[in-house]
Amino acid sequence: MTLRIGVFDSGLGGLTVLKALRRELPRADFHYVGDTARVPYGTKSDATIRRYALEIAHYLGRERLDALVVACNTVSAVALGDLQSQFGFPVIGMVEAGARAAAESPRGAGPARIGVICTAATARSGAYERALESRLPGAVVRVKACPLFVPLVEEGWTDGPVVQGVIDRYLAGFKREGIDTLLLGCTHYPLLKEALRHYFAGGVAIASSGRAAAAQLRDKLRLPAAEPGAASGTVKIDLTDPPAATTPALLERFLGEPAPEPAHLDAEKEFRIP
Amino acid sequence: MTLRIGVFDSGLGGLTVLKALRRELPRADFHYVGDTARVPYGTKSDATIRRYALEIAHYLGRERLDALVVACNTVSAVALGDLQSQFGFPVIGMVEAGARAAAESPRGAGPARIGVICTAATARSGAYERALESRLPGAVVRVKACPLFVPLVEEGWTDGPVVQGVIDRYLAGFKREGIDTLLLGCTHYPLLKEALRHYFAGGVAIASSGRAAAAQLRDKLRLPAAEPGAASGTVKIDLTDPPAATTPALLERFLGEPAPEPAHLDAEKEFRIP
Repeated sequence: MTLRIGVFDSGLGGLTVLKALRRELPRADFHYVGDTARVPYGTKSDATIRRYALEIAHYLGRERLDALVVACNTVSAVALGDLQSQFGFPVIGMVEAGARAAAESPRGAGPARIGVICTAATARSGAYERALESRLPGAVVRVKACPLFVPLVEEGWTDGPVVQGVIDRYLAGFKREGIDTLLLGCTHYPLLKEALRHYFAGGVAIASSGRAAAAQLRDKLRLPAAEPGAASGTVKIDLTDPPAATTPALLERFLGEPAPEPAHLDAEKEFRIP
Repeated sequence: MTLRIGVFDSGLGGLTVLKALRRELPRADFHYVGDTARVPYGTKSDATIRRYALEIAHYLGRERLDALVVACNTVSAVALGDLQSQFGFPVIGMVEAGARAAAESPRGAGPARIGVICTAATARSGAYERALESRLPGAVVRVKACPLFVPLVEEGWTDGPVVQGVIDRYLAGFKREGIDTLLLGCTHYPLLKEALRHYFAGGVAIASSGRAAAAQLRDKLRLPAAEPGAASGTVKIDLTDPPAATTPALLERFLGEPAPEPAHLDAEKEFRIP
């Protein structure tokens, strides 16, 4: 039977995770929800983030699911336990996956020095410090909220002097302290990877959670490693904001392949927490 | 009887309008709603903006109101007609007020050259072109969406090289074409006034809608001009995101005076469009 995987994010950033999932589970069918009518989550309170996450998970869970991937670091940091306690299928988050990717990053001798960049809500949660401490005891971990990175990416500004200026204002401290690994703690940030690499002049390893989450999901479902080749499973995308303004080119930028036309998910009608 | 005025915005930016309203109507009682759980509106679709606006207006309208001020240019541009058709009291928007302020701005001979800066949804609506054309026939009007200005202000970055870089990327065209008036078409932008003045090196008049909206409301309610002095009316602030993260200092930055402690408005329970 074909695997059915639910995936959600506050907006389109989670499509970068879906891209990694498609590579690892090419025959699975994916149902993605982007809460574009209420994006962003990372600047909002824990209570609000938790409510939004439960609404979407219950919507996705109305169909049979083999697993749910929380393709949003903010929700993973703030509400993963709430989600895991409510469903019988595995619920995979981004924080554990990110910590795993950072721990496996190549580095020299001595304690790891990891800089995590994320949203304000993720930083507030302390989730990355906990996850990294348990995987890399003794590591030096710095966490920095970078609220402007998401709007920069959504504006399509992913390099150039303004982007470098914003990066410098947030990350001069990381540069000064000499981190060896930069962990991208938000699904939008892979689109800033080149700009970040440029800023650190190649001096840091860049880790992100998408691929690690996909590997984690494959382990959880006891699946063999994927054979290389084009994905044959289906992708369905629902957006809570009527998606007229979401161009195919924008979706493709995140998903890395042509995306199916998104459907409008009417939050008013569909979001009910039982 | 004390006047009761409802005021709302997608977030905290509308407090800059409330500041102007308090100056013009110092004895009125104000009830402000900031939809901080769903902010921003300006990047979302018209249908979503309209639904959010109606939900909040109906919530405010459950109390007796003498007027409603839509302290959000995006809602004013997209949904003012919808609101005006549903209520018996005057509903004042920001677009007309902004056009009035721009028209009354001092300028030399020849046709006015007005640059409007605003959100993507406001730009898409064409509302400013229409309002300015009817007040200043023959004026040259340019409209530019500047989606990063709102997150910049919310991050508290209101001047410095990064801010100047963002301004230049959006407004180099306005500078080149030589506008005489810059109309701030979003309630967040007054906090960028000094940075914008610096960028244009004093060469443009800066117009904003807050004060003009307050004057328009006073005319509509046939009130005499306010006597100078401290406001004696009350202010009640409701926010849809539990306001723990909203510090008094942040509120004061927008309101220009110490703000009362905000209450949490539970959107789930309170927002019903009849």
